[in-house]
Amino acid sequence: MQGEPIDTLETPSVLIDMDIMERNIAQMQARCDQLGLAFRPHIKTHKIPDIARRQLAAGAVGIACQKVSEAEVFAAAGFRDIQIPYNIVGARKTKRLAELARTADISVTVDSRAVVDGIAAAAQKAGAHIKALVELVSLGKRTGATPVDALTLAQQISATANLGFAGLMIYPSNAAIRPRLLETLERLAAAGIPATIISGGGSGAVREAHLLPELTEMRVGTYVFYDWNSVSQGYTTFEHCAMRVRATIVSANEASRVILDAGSKAIHSETVGGLFGYLEEFPDARLHQVNEEHGYVDFSACATKPAVGDILHIIPVHACVVSNLHNRLYGVRGGMIEQVWDVAARGLVW
Amino acid sequence: MQGEPIDTLETPSVLIDMDIMERNIAQMQARCDQLGLAFRPHIKTHKIPDIARRQLAAGAVGIACQKVSEAEVFAAAGFRDIQIPYNIVGARKTKRLAELARTADISVTVDSRAVVDGIAAAAQKAGAHIKALVELVSLGKRTGATPVDALTLAQQISATANLGFAGLMIYPSNAAIRPRLLETLERLAAAGIPATIISGGGSGAVREAHLLPELTEMRVGTYVFYDWNSVSQGYTTFEHCAMRVRATIVSANEASRVILDAGSKAIHSETVGGLFGYLEEFPDARLHQVNEEHGYVDFSACATKPAVGDILHIIPVHACVVSNLHNRLYGVRGGMIEQVWDVAARGLVW
Repeated sequence: MQGEPIDTLETPSVLIDMDIMERNIAQMQARCDQLGLAFRPHIKTHKIPDIARRQLAAGAVGIACQKVSEAEVFAAAGFRDIQIPYNIVGARKTKRLAELARTADISVTVDSRAVVDGIAAAAQKAGAHIKALVELVSLGKRTGATPVDALTLAQQISATANLGFAGLMIYPSNAAIRPRLLETLERLAAAGIPATIISGGGSGAVREAHLLPELTEMRVGTYVFYDWNSVSQGYTTFEHCAMRVRATIVSANEASRVILDAGSKAIHSETVGGLFGYLEEFPDARLHQVNEEHGYVDFSACATKPAVGDILHIIPVHACVVSNLHNRLYGVRGGMIEQVWDVAARGLVW
Repeated sequence: MQGEPIDTLETPSVLIDMDIMERNIAQMQARCDQLGLAFRPHIKTHKIPDIARRQLAAGAVGIACQKVSEAEVFAAAGFRDIQIPYNIVGARKTKRLAELARTADISVTVDSRAVVDGIAAAAQKAGAHIKALVELVSLGKRTGATPVDALTLAQQISATANLGFAGLMIYPSNAAIRPRLLETLERLAAAGIPATIISGGGSGAVREAHLLPELTEMRVGTYVFYDWNSVSQGYTTFEHCAMRVRATIVSANEASRVILDAGSKAIHSETVGGLFGYLEEFPDARLHQVNEEHGYVDFSACATKPAVGDILHIIPVHACVVSNLHNRLYGVRGGMIEQVWDVAARGLVW
């Protein structure tokens, strides 16, 4: 399909506007360069080595993956500096992590003694060295340790063979977290433990990165494509959204409603304001319901209603979960298919 | 992994209890046999040829697929009687449909003149014969034609070379649709057009199939695994739920809440009563939030809280969308992995 017009694509297909993606990559790198931050794109948004290579070529220092299995795919594709900002738990996973660390520069995050113990045992058994960052609990209270526990974990890591304490990780790293970060850094300093890396993350948090001058690097994923979520949360505008799901109208028997061939299998089922996607050609149309293979669009606020066979383009609510549903993404420019990408790390949950 | 204990599986993994699945297959076939209905399982729930073969071996007459690409996978796996209860729209899709119909017994559904025209053109060009059922609009008002339009479409199909009018399709085929179905059948009879197949469908509707004696076949998908949706809607009980997502606790720093390694990439993001899955070991726990790789579980209503490294089993909200997220499902019995199934038709959206 490469080199052919977009019209030769079946629907639903996921298009990536190359111009917009390239601009997003350049602008985020410039923003981090300006702040003096190392930039580490999170591959969860695209799961495609070729796109990560473009991010590295623009100046990124390495990548972040969320799973060992994703890191395995990217290591096999030649990536060397891979951070997994996730608690790796279980003997088989830590064994695979340690194997990876024998050939690549692997760092992970931890938030409890149990997680450190498991990784340490595997690293020692494999004779591998693994860098560990302690995750500091953020305002979102997902994972992470308190400042007091962070110090204890940093001491544990520093005292453990085959592990190295590399610093702190925060997600999302909004400016409001600064008092907690400063408290933790003071505790570490008082104990004589240097924190080399202070890794922040989050598409929203990157806008506030200048308010957290302690950060040394940023991890951001969504910026490469952006999505309706990013727009609705004020992180960007539609002109920066690179991903579109191309869909066909397959039924139009109701007065002001049509059915698209893109449902939750193509655009997922997350919502913005109760809607499952933003229709580029009809901003007032409401994609208000999805089944697996059907999208329901209400055109009652629109002057015209499209017909069976017409093609529409949906800006999805959440780009990362859309990439994870599709075997291929199509990079497009000037009406032509420029890239056909296998989503190499799609569906990797281990 | 086949023949090894379940404990050798990484998490998150999708387990299918073979005993429960086999009982579900036998019971649904017995129900349809008792009603004198042909049974046509919808493969969307599992997307795995081996499971469809078990459904045929139990007495099913053929299968239903929702996409041409799914039908292509199952035709290549040897299936011959394939119904696609979907409007196939677009020149490339109808061409592939017609190619399939040259070697397999393919039926589709239609709900507009435009859809019939497209399929007819492709069938004529390929020299294939395609059976078409007219979809009657159901109370859900998704796709489908009115009784008046259904007659017009049946006449159009009957008068078109390479197409054959096969009957009517309804989804969901609840008993409340009977007046509309009877009206349509009367119009067809008055026009001298026989409707050989009256195809009903839906996990809930199968319970009311005896109230629609005009039905000749039923299409049901979810029954093979069932899920929390099926239980919450009263279609079945938990003891018939065959699918579980096996997950590990990766963080437990909050007082009464833990984080699982199963999020929307493993269990999807549909909900029952605001919850994303039912925890088998802790019925009072609340899986109240998911990110892509994290599930948040509140244990404040439970007497005990599990620890990092503990393994839990989630009965998912919607089995079909879970199958579509995973590359493999694992059939288990007596604590052992009996089957390792590639989800052959996973992610096929064309």
